[in-house]
Amino acid sequence: MHVTVIGGGLIGASWAALFLAHGHRVCVHDVAPGVEARVRQELQRIQPFMAQLGLPLDPHSPALSFDGDLARAVRQADVVQECGPERLAFKQSLWVSVESHCRPDALLLSSSSGITASMQSRKMASPQRMLVGHPFNPPHLIPLVEVVPGRRTSAEATERARQFYLALGKQAIVLRKEIPGFVANRIQAAVIRESVSLVRQGVVSVEDLDTAVQSSLGLRWACGGPFLSAHLGGGAGGIGAFFKQFAGGLQLLWLHMRLRPVLLTGGAQRALAQQIEQRYGAQSIDQWASRRDQQQIALLQALQRPSQSE
Amino acid sequence: MHVTVIGGGLIGASWAALFLAHGHRVCVHDVAPGVEARVRQELQRIQPFMAQLGLPLDPHSPALSFDGDLARAVRQADVVQECGPERLAFKQSLWVSVESHCRPDALLLSSSSGITASMQSRKMASPQRMLVGHPFNPPHLIPLVEVVPGRRTSAEATERARQFYLALGKQAIVLRKEIPGFVANRIQAAVIRESVSLVRQGVVSVEDLDTAVQSSLGLRWACGGPFLSAHLGGGAGGIGAFFKQFAGGLQLLWLHMRLRPVLLTGGAQRALAQQIEQRYGAQSIDQWASRRDQQQIALLQALQRPSQSE
Repeated sequence: MHVTVIGGGLIGASWAALFLAHGHRVCVHDVAPGVEARVRQELQRIQPFMAQLGLPLDPHSPALSFDGDLARAVRQADVVQECGPERLAFKQSLWVSVESHCRPDALLLSSSSGITASMQSRKMASPQRMLVGHPFNPPHLIPLVEVVPGRRTSAEATERARQFYLALGKQAIVLRKEIPGFVANRIQAAVIRESVSLVRQGVVSVEDLDTAVQSSLGLRWACGGPFLSAHLGGGAGGIGAFFKQFAGGLQLLWLHMRLRPVLLTGGAQRALAQQIEQRYGAQSIDQWASRRDQQQIALLQALQRPSQSE
Repeated sequence: MHVTVIGGGLIGASWAALFLAHGHRVCVHDVAPGVEARVRQELQRIQPFMAQLGLPLDPHSPALSFDGDLARAVRQADVVQECGPERLAFKQSLWVSVESHCRPDALLLSSSSGITASMQSRKMASPQRMLVGHPFNPPHLIPLVEVVPGRRTSAEATERARQFYLALGKQAIVLRKEIPGFVANRIQAAVIRESVSLVRQGVVSVEDLDTAVQSSLGLRWACGGPFLSAHLGGGAGGIGAFFKQFAGGLQLLWLHMRLRPVLLTGGAQRALAQQIEQRYGAQSIDQWASRRDQQQIALLQALQRPSQSE
């Protein structure tokens, strides 16, 4: 397949790596100067990580090209994966240009985490083939892709998008409604909210909060989502027993959480940032990020081992 | 050390296994008939799991004893780990009995997930040595222990409890305030709340919600908590850049979540249970639980490998 990546930032480079590793021809379009060098450098950086997941990546592959001219870049595309800035006006006019130059059957996908397909496609003549395919960062490692059709996206385009991502080895889920934050970022926001609340109330330090989540819930949810965990939390009685035992307590906790507003004021941000710098500042962001990527690969490998499969 | 476990249910048996594996003498006290057989059977079941973590466990160890007489069971204890029913009256009178029979320097710990030390110790003559040591299920596998002192717990007892758990290889965090749900269960409740909300609003299925969390946030948080993740989510600018880019969006999502009440009515429970049974019912709870335990061990092993260390 011919895939055009619009935007050569970190997400664009990561997608390009994954597409290349799965045998697609990839054209990266970006008008910024120096994009080719930066993308190739990023491919070089992530190549060893992908190799550990059995994904061969050649940063100098002849299947990779760059084109600063949008019309040329999308002309042959079977799929366009947009990774541009998160600005509505930019995306709206981009899609109008794309659809006037691409093949009529090209599938048009946006990596946006927040601007819905319904909003992005508003000025398009053929919005039925445009939808969101939101990856979880970094796309070359983390399996989830949220497929979020807009009001005018066709069921056929949605299914094509899902199949496209599944063939890349992704865990693609289809959302039935457009909602701010989609699914994963809403869950994440709920966790950050309660984490901020607990630290701001003086219940725990930033360090202990991170330790708590990492050494309990993170492990739990890496092996099964919240509903499977609840099902198992009920013991032999499953989810029925879980609700019987915990529904009342959950409802009270939810009320307790809801009554208390959590505000990220400037002062709150500074206090949190200070604790976070204190805990993590001794190592650079790059060091922490490499460590995280390495660990995530180790976890993915551990979960992929045949004896662990369902 | 001599550790007395009060309550021979699943949590008690799991603690007993961990204590034995670390060379402690363990006495299990429970007045229910057949406790010894059930505990030994559970030790037999979890023995191979613990072996994979390098924790040797002999279900027939001479270091393990049973005593239905509370006075005798606690007499020699250096540490008591209570795992009885979650009823305030039961725990209050239990501690009064325990303190009248145990050594004056015995450390008294409750596994309670919800009844605070301040409440449990209200009738005690020496409440300064009683506090909560709340494990995350199952205690023999999951590293987290929440150490939660009550208002009258001494700093020395809190530190002894922390050291006791650290020596067992646990990740022990100390809470500075007693709060309903402590830390991990509050974070979990926040996730279940948003998960229930998304399914009830028809945004995703139970299956897709679980897939989303498992294949993104679970992996992320198993490698680092929410604050480290935010720090890395800001790119080279760290947490400052993260707040600059995302604080406004988070605040809006929090408002959006807070405006909408989430209710676990009978109807909601039935609808959720039906979807959960549909997704997971083909395998037994035991099969899912074994799979989860096996995966968690694989993850713990992957995270422990020297190349993955900090």
